[in-house]
Amino acid sequence: MANNNEVEHIEVGVVGLGLMGSSIAVALLLAGHPVKGVAPLADDLKDAPQRILAQLKHCEETGLLKKSIEEYLMNLTLSDDYTILKNCQLVQECVIEIKEIKAQVYQKIINATAENTVISSNTSAIPISLLQDMIDRPSRFVGIHWAEPAYMTRFLEITKGKQTADSHAQWVFNLAHHWNKEPTFLQKDIRGFVTNRLMYAVYREALHLITQGETSLEDADKAFRYDAGSWMVFMGIFRRMDYLGVRDFHEILKNFFPLLNNGDEVPEVMQKMIKQEARGTQNCAGLFSYTQEEARQWNKSFALFNKDIFKLAQKYPESYQRDNYGERK
Amino acid sequence: MANNNEVEHIEVGVVGLGLMGSSIAVALLLAGHPVKGVAPLADDLKDAPQRILAQLKHCEETGLLKKSIEEYLMNLTLSDDYTILKNCQLVQECVIEIKEIKAQVYQKIINATAENTVISSNTSAIPISLLQDMIDRPSRFVGIHWAEPAYMTRFLEITKGKQTADSHAQWVFNLAHHWNKEPTFLQKDIRGFVTNRLMYAVYREALHLITQGETSLEDADKAFRYDAGSWMVFMGIFRRMDYLGVRDFHEILKNFFPLLNNGDEVPEVMQKMIKQEARGTQNCAGLFSYTQEEARQWNKSFALFNKDIFKLAQKYPESYQRDNYGERK
Repeated sequence: MANNNEVEHIEVGVVGLGLMGSSIAVALLLAGHPVKGVAPLADDLKDAPQRILAQLKHCEETGLLKKSIEEYLMNLTLSDDYTILKNCQLVQECVIEIKEIKAQVYQKIINATAENTVISSNTSAIPISLLQDMIDRPSRFVGIHWAEPAYMTRFLEITKGKQTADSHAQWVFNLAHHWNKEPTFLQKDIRGFVTNRLMYAVYREALHLITQGETSLEDADKAFRYDAGSWMVFMGIFRRMDYLGVRDFHEILKNFFPLLNNGDEVPEVMQKMIKQEARGTQNCAGLFSYTQEEARQWNKSFALFNKDIFKLAQKYPESYQRDNYGERK
Repeated sequence: MANNNEVEHIEVGVVGLGLMGSSIAVALLLAGHPVKGVAPLADDLKDAPQRILAQLKHCEETGLLKKSIEEYLMNLTLSDDYTILKNCQLVQECVIEIKEIKAQVYQKIINATAENTVISSNTSAIPISLLQDMIDRPSRFVGIHWAEPAYMTRFLEITKGKQTADSHAQWVFNLAHHWNKEPTFLQKDIRGFVTNRLMYAVYREALHLITQGETSLEDADKAFRYDAGSWMVFMGIFRRMDYLGVRDFHEILKNFFPLLNNGDEVPEVMQKMIKQEARGTQNCAGLFSYTQEEARQWNKSFALFNKDIFKLAQKYPESYQRDNYGERK
């Protein structure tokens, strides 16, 4: 695995400097990489410097910086010219989720870089196997899926497409540990990756119970916040089984699996959201109701909470437990 | 609703003083109630004073006490004699999950108390409707399901059985807000309540993906910890839909529901746990492997984490948002 000193010599590129791309650029700067940011859209190139500066200040407030903001900025080059990617060993694409546009971007990246440069996409909508079909030497194509804000979340999903070489995916996986991440490694390119699949199972059951009048939106939310929420960030669902004594779960699962909803139908309430052009806290119309002030407060509070939960999660990371207890390789 | 001053005049009883019963007694003491604790088992009566003292010290360390430990203890009576329950308006049963034993306990509670005393069970295994059939005046029987440690979790499930009167359940629901809880209110007595049902949906999908070789135990845990874990304690799953703009979810759910696993079969790995007499961190054998030191560390770290997440959750409670933004009644 690369050591921290080596990381500083691995140039990485980010193509697409919207909110997510900027935030990924900041995460990579924090890890010590020289970062080359390419903005295919003129507006993004105009806004990116201010946005990145604001994000670095956010990092500073949260105590994430080891150096001054100026020193991090010295490591950043922004341009609309792909040739700045020349020496990048990894280029992360974060442009709009339209296949044809991504294809054009990949061609420009390939033209500007060496043939062994690893190319990755932040897509959550298009299968990695499909994207990699569009490029030359597809074995070097890897899915790297970040969570927003990228510099402050420990989540990262690394996904192999059908043609991805193990060595490239493993190289990214190892590197991601230097990005302060706890990456998951998907050997197969499944739709929705792991987290989303698990969450959709929750949504199906919850919407079913609500439709049956057995619970309410409010209570489903409360139950999840105050029960799962009280252990989720410390341990996963299977670690929790171990913590609770594991053995009884066979009987419990056997009894409960047949009770779970198996329907494919999306309940009416979701169709209603479309008819009402609901955008949740974005336009004060959603599953819950909001005044403008309430919507603003939810957004503001969540930004504060993000800082707090990040600090808390850092006190109990998997790697801390791994390093301290030597449990896993 | 009762005000805080009235709470101090509502005597409550707890029958069964094991770990959970003691912890519930402490939660009720903290809320200001005079608490009468009955220990049907001699060992529990012997151990309860020390256990309750240790739990109160835990509360003190976490900054939960408004008065000295001595003042709280003055409000507590422990006995093996049910007659101390005489003036209790609410008696919470927390004995072993055996129907016949619970029936005997209820009869003793009824003999000792007034006929309008609300009787409740902490059961998570036996339907409330079935338990209430065993008592006189079943309309006063309410399910009150706590999470351990009861004095430090905000979770509480209040469940009506088929014969429970609305007025009694609503009285408990209102009272629970004085216990520093964010209670959910189940109008119907569904198996597994809400939280467990949602978690079993997650277990089914996760075990299916693992069995298919599409992910691993480790990665399912990581994905849930670092994705859901990073917002779960702040907002529930439906509030998060609103936060993300809600509208697109109809299409997403429509695409993903058909991909979810619908099997009733419990995967082999759970059967294996039974064969191996695995008890997780309790005997160092489980889904993951543990040395004794590792198992000890997981338990110790979780106790520390519990304090931290409790403090964090208190900064962002539903009631805070409700009170400040006036969103809900």
